[in-house]
Amino acid sequence: MLPIPIKKFIELFSELPSIGPRQATRLAFHLIASGKNTIQEIERSLSDIKNLKNCEQCFFIATAPSNLCFFCADSKRRKDLIAIVEKPTDLLSLEKTRTFNGQYFILGDLAKAGVLETAQRLRIKNLASRMEKEFPDKNAEIIIAISPTTFGDFTAQLITQEFKPLVKKITRLGRGIPTGGEIEFADEETLRNALERRN
Amino acid sequence: MLPIPIKKFIELFSELPSIGPRQATRLAFHLIASGKNTIQEIERSLSDIKNLKNCEQCFFIATAPSNLCFFCADSKRRKDLIAIVEKPTDLLSLEKTRTFNGQYFILGDLAKAGVLETAQRLRIKNLASRMEKEFPDKNAEIIIAISPTTFGDFTAQLITQEFKPLVKKITRLGRGIPTGGEIEFADEETLRNALERRN
Repeated sequence: MLPIPIKKFIELFSELPSIGPRQATRLAFHLIASGKNTIQEIERSLSDIKNLKNCEQCFFIATAPSNLCFFCADSKRRKDLIAIVEKPTDLLSLEKTRTFNGQYFILGDLAKAGVLETAQRLRIKNLASRMEKEFPDKNAEIIIAISPTTFGDFTAQLITQEFKPLVKKITRLGRGIPTGGEIEFADEETLRNALERRN
Repeated sequence: MLPIPIKKFIELFSELPSIGPRQATRLAFHLIASGKNTIQEIERSLSDIKNLKNCEQCFFIATAPSNLCFFCADSKRRKDLIAIVEKPTDLLSLEKTRTFNGQYFILGDLAKAGVLETAQRLRIKNLASRMEKEFPDKNAEIIIAISPTTFGDFTAQLITQEFKPLVKKITRLGRGIPTGGEIEFADEETLRNALERRN
């Protein structure tokens, strides 16, 4: 009934976050009706993001040709204050508060299963080594900006254990954020309060 | 703050139907995290749908190498019964009822403004010429399967005027569909009723 390229498109796009088969179908016909130029523009855009690399320090996206991201490359930001977040979108939400002037560290999506992946444990170990080397006097500070879900709390405990011997202060984002909620969806004011009242 | 390729991606994807800037942002980071192979697969899929052509008869998507779509190429379907629909997704919804065995004709998205585009008027004229030629005895039938919105009703009137002298019967989909609702979102049973009770 549907040509194979459309079926394939629907299959691929249905797998993307919050796009179902119905929206994927509408997208397919919308794009075909939009014409070759529109589709080509999207292809070019995909090709461009394909070549992006992670910041070698914090795992946000590096701003080419640098190997660092916007935040790690910015000499005006504090290097002794690091916010550990789960996702790049969490970083963007925090940044919108214009309250935080430190650096970030992205852990990667926390699995629902409740166990950190090897890659995530490695990222934490690497950050720990870096802190040890850069701040032998232990005068740095870590903010754990992980969503206060059950597994987020568990992860926060792990991080606290890891960094306790290495830094002078470890805090989590304060109240403000409703328990069980997601950082990504909090409004700027709630996040601003959470940054100020962290404990 | 964000590398230019990500900004461009968010801008492009935010323009697609029912994708907002927030979902586009999440999509961008999701795709980057999914890696090159996933993005390449999507690029290939886009490249494939880019080369699809409209059915030269009904303006659904032609199944290559034919110039006709699945429905127009199917010799088992009635050629003297034509359902005029707005969108390809409306066609798919009707087809799911397994009640209709005629052919389709796609008018294209009705503008909110209330006037048919030149291309749409041309499509109607072309269909009219075809009916005149193929059914000089006027023994064909037209089903107007346009959503019963204000402008849908207006369009239905236009179509009725155009085809009244050319076919033996013109009907619209029957009750069943709530007034002001959209065909695309009707369940199969409602659509089946609407096909049976058309008037």
